Amino acid sequence: MSESLKEVFHNHVRQLQDKITQQMLTLDPTLKISEDLWERVDHAGAPGGGGRTRAFQGQLFENAGVNTSCVFGKIDPNFASKLPGDGDTMWAAGISLIIHPTNPRVPTVHANFRMIQQGQKTWFGGGADLTPFYPHEEDFRYFHGVWKKASGENYSWMKKECDEYFVNAHRGGEMRGIGGLFFDGYNTGHLETDFSMVKDLSEHFIESYFPLVVKRQLEAFTPEDEEFQLHRRGRYVEFNLLHDRGTLFGLKTNGRVDSILISLPARCKFTYQYAPAKGSAHEKMLNYYRPQNWV
Amino acid sequence: MSESLKEVFHNHVRQLQDKITQQMLTLDPTLKISEDLWERVDHAGAPGGGGRTRAFQGQLFENAGVNTSCVFGKIDPNFASKLPGDGDTMWAAGISLIIHPTNPRVPTVHANFRMIQQGQKTWFGGGADLTPFYPHEEDFRYFHGVWKKASGENYSWMKKECDEYFVNAHRGGEMRGIGGLFFDGYNTGHLETDFSMVKDLSEHFIESYFPLVVKRQLEAFTPEDEEFQLHRRGRYVEFNLLHDRGTLFGLKTNGRVDSILISLPARCKFTYQYAPAKGSAHEKMLNYYRPQNWV
Repeated sequence: MSESLKEVFHNHVRQLQDKITQQMLTLDPTLKISEDLWERVDHAGAPGGGGRTRAFQGQLFENAGVNTSCVFGKIDPNFASKLPGDGDTMWAAGISLIIHPTNPRVPTVHANFRMIQQGQKTWFGGGADLTPFYPHEEDFRYFHGVWKKASGENYSWMKKECDEYFVNAHRGGEMRGIGGLFFDGYNTGHLETDFSMVKDLSEHFIESYFPLVVKRQLEAFTPEDEEFQLHRRGRYVEFNLLHDRGTLFGLKTNGRVDSILISLPARCKFTYQYAPAKGSAHEKMLNYYRPQNWV
Repeated sequence: MSESLKEVFHNHVRQLQDKITQQMLTLDPTLKISEDLWERVDHAGAPGGGGRTRAFQGQLFENAGVNTSCVFGKIDPNFASKLPGDGDTMWAAGISLIIHPTNPRVPTVHANFRMIQQGQKTWFGGGADLTPFYPHEEDFRYFHGVWKKASGENYSWMKKECDEYFVNAHRGGEMRGIGGLFFDGYNTGHLETDFSMVKDLSEHFIESYFPLVVKRQLEAFTPEDEEFQLHRRGRYVEFNLLHDRGTLFGLKTNGRVDSILISLPARCKFTYQYAPAKGSAHEKMLNYYRPQNWV
C-alpha cells in the first residue's frame, strides 16, 4: 500500500476533527476545549506515533471527546496472532468521538472511523450510533436516513451489525441506543474503493447529528427527563466498561486511559430496579432500545 | 462434608444480614428497604436455589445492598474445569454487601463472606474493604485495627491480598480505597476450623464499620468534598465493571443482574483528567489509595 494513502487518511481524520470541533463551538459558545497531544512507544520501545485528544465541556455539550490518533510499530505477538493481518507490526489511524449533551431531549452520539494495516493486510472499521433519551421518532428516522443515504447498499448489513454490537447482553439484549452503522475488518480487496467509501461515510457524520442538536437544544425538559437520561447514561457506562471491544482493548494494551475513558458521561445514576413511570414517554422510549427498521 | 455445616453457614449469613439491616435502620430512620426473594435454575434446568436481596435508600445511606444467597446444582463443565474443586456440581452460600453513604465524610464499605463446595472440595472466600473520601487517618487505623484483631496471624497476608485485589490496574495501580482483608480459595484441610474462622471474621463487620458512620454522620461537608466523592465513586464503577471477578463472573453466568449491580453508587461523575485542588484534603487523600501499614 502506498504511504500516501495512509497519510491521506490521517490528514482526513484530523481535518474532520477540526470541522466537528468548529461545529460544536458554533453551537455552544460556552464550550471549553482541552487539547492534549500525546505520544507513545511501541511494543519494542521505539517511537510509535500518538494522538490529538480534545475534551469538551459546555452548557449545551456537557462533556464530549473528539480524538484522533495515528499509531504504529511493533505489537505484542500474542495480540498480533488474534488480528486478521499478518506479522507483528501495525499501523492504525482514526477518529473517535462521543458527545453527551446536557439537555435530555438532545441525543448522545458516538462515531468512529479507522484504517488499520498489519503486515500486508489493510482493513477499515467504524460507524456511528445514536443514544436518545426521548421518543422523538422523527429524529431516529432522520439519523438512519442520513446513514442509509451515505452507505447505500451496505446499509442493511452495517445497520444489522450495529444492532448486534451496541448491546448490553447482561441486560437481556437491550441496546444502548437506537443503532446506526457498524463495520469492522472491512476489506473488499479493492483498497482505493474501500478507502473512498469509509472517507465518504465519515463525511456524513456532521449532517447526521448536528441538525438534531439544533432542532432540540432549546426544548424544555422535566426533572423526569433528566432522571431517565442519567439512568440511561448509567447503561452507557455499563456497555462501555463491560462490552465495548475498543475500550477493553485500549485499556489492556496500555492505551492512553484518559483518552479512552473520555467516552464516559460527566454525570450518571444507578438505581436498583430503576423503571420510568407507567405510561410515560420514557417507558415508551424503552421499546426503542431494540432493533427495528427506521427507514 | 455434613449437610448441617452448610445449613449452619447459610443460616449464619441470613442472621448476619438481619443484624446489619437492623443496624442500618437504627442509624437511618429514613431508610427504605426493598426486599426481593429470587430463585434460579441450575445448568441442567433443575431448581438451583436462590437468594434474598435487600436494596436500601435513605438520607444517611444513599444506596446500599445487603444480599444473601444459597445456590446449588449442575454447573457449566467449561466453568467447572476452571474452579479448584472437582466435578460439575456445586453449592455456594454467602453474604455480600455494599454501602454508599450520602455524606462524603462517611466512607463507603464493601464486605463479602462465602462458603463454596464443588464435588468433594470445600473452600471459603471473603473480606471487607473501605473506600473513604476524606483523609481521616484515625478511621483507617480503626478499620484495619478491628480486622487485625479479628484475623490475628492471618492479617498480614489477607491485608496484602486485599491491597493487590481492589486495584484499578488501568489507573496505574491505584486502589479503589484503603483496603482491608481479602481471601479466596481458603482451605487449610481443617474444615471446621476454617468454618469457624470465616464465621468469626464475618461477625466483626458491624464493629469495623458502623462506629465510623456514627462518628462522621453529622460532620459538615463542602461541595468540593462531594465533587471528590462523586469522582471516586466513578473509579469504584470502573473497578467493579472492569476488574471485579465476582461481578464479571456473575454477569457471564446469567446471575441476577439487579442483585449484582446493586454495588454501583446511586450517583457518580466522570471528568476528563479530574484532579482535586492543590494542597486540598482531597489531594492528600489520593496518597492513601496505595498500600500502606495502618496498624
